[in-house]
Amino acid sequence: MNNSTRDIDALIEMMSKLPGLGPRSARRAVLHLIRKRALQLTPLADLMQTVAVTARECVRCGNIGTTDVCDICLSNKRATGEICVVEDVADLWAMERTNVFKGRYHVLGGTLSALDSVGPEDLRIPMLESRIENEGITEVILAVSATIDGQTTAHYIADQLEGRVKLTTLAQGVPIGGELDYLDDGTISAALNARKEI
Amino acid sequence: MNNSTRDIDALIEMMSKLPGLGPRSARRAVLHLIRKRALQLTPLADLMQTVAVTARECVRCGNIGTTDVCDICLSNKRATGEICVVEDVADLWAMERTNVFKGRYHVLGGTLSALDSVGPEDLRIPMLESRIENEGITEVILAVSATIDGQTTAHYIADQLEGRVKLTTLAQGVPIGGELDYLDDGTISAALNARKEI
Repeated sequence: MNNSTRDIDALIEMMSKLPGLGPRSARRAVLHLIRKRALQLTPLADLMQTVAVTARECVRCGNIGTTDVCDICLSNKRATGEICVVEDVADLWAMERTNVFKGRYHVLGGTLSALDSVGPEDLRIPMLESRIENEGITEVILAVSATIDGQTTAHYIADQLEGRVKLTTLAQGVPIGGELDYLDDGTISAALNARKEI
Repeated sequence: MNNSTRDIDALIEMMSKLPGLGPRSARRAVLHLIRKRALQLTPLADLMQTVAVTARECVRCGNIGTTDVCDICLSNKRATGEICVVEDVADLWAMERTNVFKGRYHVLGGTLSALDSVGPEDLRIPMLESRIENEGITEVILAVSATIDGQTTAHYIADQLEGRVKLTTLAQGVPIGGELDYLDDGTISAALNARKEI
């Protein structure tokens, strides 16, 4: 590779740093885009330009949208009183895809982590507390990961909010379609302890 | 998702159609880009815009670059007389990374395929023949895939060029670092047949 392909090399380099892509898949993606440059590369570049300008975090819940307060926070079809606390916007999107939860969200922006020195002030925890005061929240659903950091964060938030709202967490158990044989012991124990009468 | 996130959704949708990415990894990549929009999303969009305008196929060999005739074809450090025939620009790039081949290339743009009705006129085969006439080529290295379509293409080209130039092909055998136990029978047979005295 040399001077006249500098931009193409730079594009491959940038693409290869995206999560989920490596040098090989970045080269394939860039070649694909160059072959369909009128149909795909130009529209993709335009769309990225637009999103770079319009995308912003919701000042209330931390969701990503194109308005200062996101549509979920603004919607009057959403149950007031319920807040689902998630670690990340990706988790919020995952919850939304199920179409089950009808309340609003609060995106923490990570988990507490002593190792990476992430404290409560680095997450959106103070903002959560002020929302509970101001929005008449009655239930906080802690939908954080079942990892050590996730659970530490959930415990911390539960400690802070105790007595002020009803606190719930997602049920743990066998995933739909999950085969017992492939599940870890912790999940099986949790499912057994939380067994239900049929 | 709804109206105000339309552009973000469209961006995820477009990204998810790139080779090597699916809906999940596209969502992750887009979230990552939005979080670093000043540092990554805007520069990436700009670079894509530039490449969309400047990228073109070399009129001589089919390589992708930013000039009508690519740097490899223009370079006077390249051995004239040798042409390495590859299926695809990705294969050319792979050959270039080894820094071993010092001649020029010819990108076919695919393989002959009865199933997908790709004939010689759909590939850059006639152009290869005229290059051999005009550029004083003495050796053609057929570096096509060891697949059925690749080998059919190699046979066809060999038939066309027989007697006009020296025709060679890449050696087949055990890959460097390859464990016999994991190799297919065809590769082992080929390596055994082509065994060399040490």
